[in-house]
Amino acid sequence: MGKLYLIPTTLGETAVEKVLPAEIMQVVRSLRYFVVENTRTARRHLKKIAPEIIIDELDFKELNEHTQPIELDMLLDPIRNGFDLGILSEAGCPGVADPGADLVKLAHEKGIQVVPLVGPSSILLSLMASGMNGQNFAFIGYLPVKPTERSAAVRDLERISARDKQTQIFIEAPYRNAKLLEDLLAVCNSQTRLCIAVDLTMDSEFVVTKTIGAWKKAIPDINKRPAIFLLQSQ
Amino acid sequence: MGKLYLIPTTLGETAVEKVLPAEIMQVVRSLRYFVVENTRTARRHLKKIAPEIIIDELDFKELNEHTQPIELDMLLDPIRNGFDLGILSEAGCPGVADPGADLVKLAHEKGIQVVPLVGPSSILLSLMASGMNGQNFAFIGYLPVKPTERSAAVRDLERISARDKQTQIFIEAPYRNAKLLEDLLAVCNSQTRLCIAVDLTMDSEFVVTKTIGAWKKAIPDINKRPAIFLLQSQ
Repeated sequence: MGKLYLIPTTLGETAVEKVLPAEIMQVVRSLRYFVVENTRTARRHLKKIAPEIIIDELDFKELNEHTQPIELDMLLDPIRNGFDLGILSEAGCPGVADPGADLVKLAHEKGIQVVPLVGPSSILLSLMASGMNGQNFAFIGYLPVKPTERSAAVRDLERISARDKQTQIFIEAPYRNAKLLEDLLAVCNSQTRLCIAVDLTMDSEFVVTKTIGAWKKAIPDINKRPAIFLLQSQ
Repeated sequence: MGKLYLIPTTLGETAVEKVLPAEIMQVVRSLRYFVVENTRTARRHLKKIAPEIIIDELDFKELNEHTQPIELDMLLDPIRNGFDLGILSEAGCPGVADPGADLVKLAHEKGIQVVPLVGPSSILLSLMASGMNGQNFAFIGYLPVKPTERSAAVRDLERISARDKQTQIFIEAPYRNAKLLEDLLAVCNSQTRLCIAVDLTMDSEFVVTKTIGAWKKAIPDINKRPAIFLLQSQ
């Protein structure tokens, strides 16, 4: 049986050498079968990683929100036929917050070897650079959008962070970043620390941790930029 | 002012090219000042990353459990003098579960730019390869060692994982891995899924997810090997 490789991609317009180890280029060159979220962007990404490969000789199958559970199993056919298979994410590390996780789950049920490769993760990069507790942290994805639910969720984060000394990490759709920041500044205790990490791995990257009180004095423009937020309260 | 670079290292005896992007070698070559946990192993690591650098021309300051809070501030002196400074971890990504986080916290208080670089994290690699929920997960470090406290903690993990659909990630000192696994098999529900990731990024790596019931039928030998555990219950 073949193996299932988890192949990270860049987080936006970054040089491949900046965020991907050389071994990823070698693995990509050795593979013929790929499972991707979107064939067009995956082709573009592979061309960037390994410019000399002949994309038209590769086999792409899509795994995204349109994939039916019954189709999942067929995606593993190359592995059953003795070929290695690669899963590519649209950005960052596959299997963390994308449909690839379902295929990895199935691979384990079938006794297939899964091999994760190193790449950029906004969760991990922001945690490293935040100066917050990395011995205990939670990534919780998106907060609720409705105002009252969101306020309650933010207060919960503060309470849990203080109780468990657990850093709370969350994201928002880029076009709602400014609104999220506004809500955080309105709801949180002024002593709570908030880290905002924007455009990670890109030239315009910034990662800054301040108290809510300090952020209120100079609100950064983060709208429509990829961002991730970390909160630690006392 | 200089910048504070967070420089990941390999997780054990792995080729640098397998887990570190080429840019890390460039950053290391450009730095003269380093903060490390242990100078001897840091020198060895830098030699591996960039064999041509002259280690004796570099400046190493140690940051570890012996460092007093009052000494932290002095570690940032090179940055105040206009030089970039690199923090190296003993293994994996600095600032996540090592004393480097305290220095990063202080850097933010001083308005210093912090730049995280991409490298291997056992937390993230195991999560990618586990097939478990990566949209909501918590890393909680070590479980209690005392039997009754540990059993209670494991039951808590199962409860929280089921309630919040949150993958629970934890570690143990390698020489206690076999005991931890024994305890997990004894305490957890047979339908709970457990992922064991051992020797990540090394030739002997394995990452396997099974139900507790299935693990009981064939208990792997993981003692004294670096491992990380992930649990998801329903």
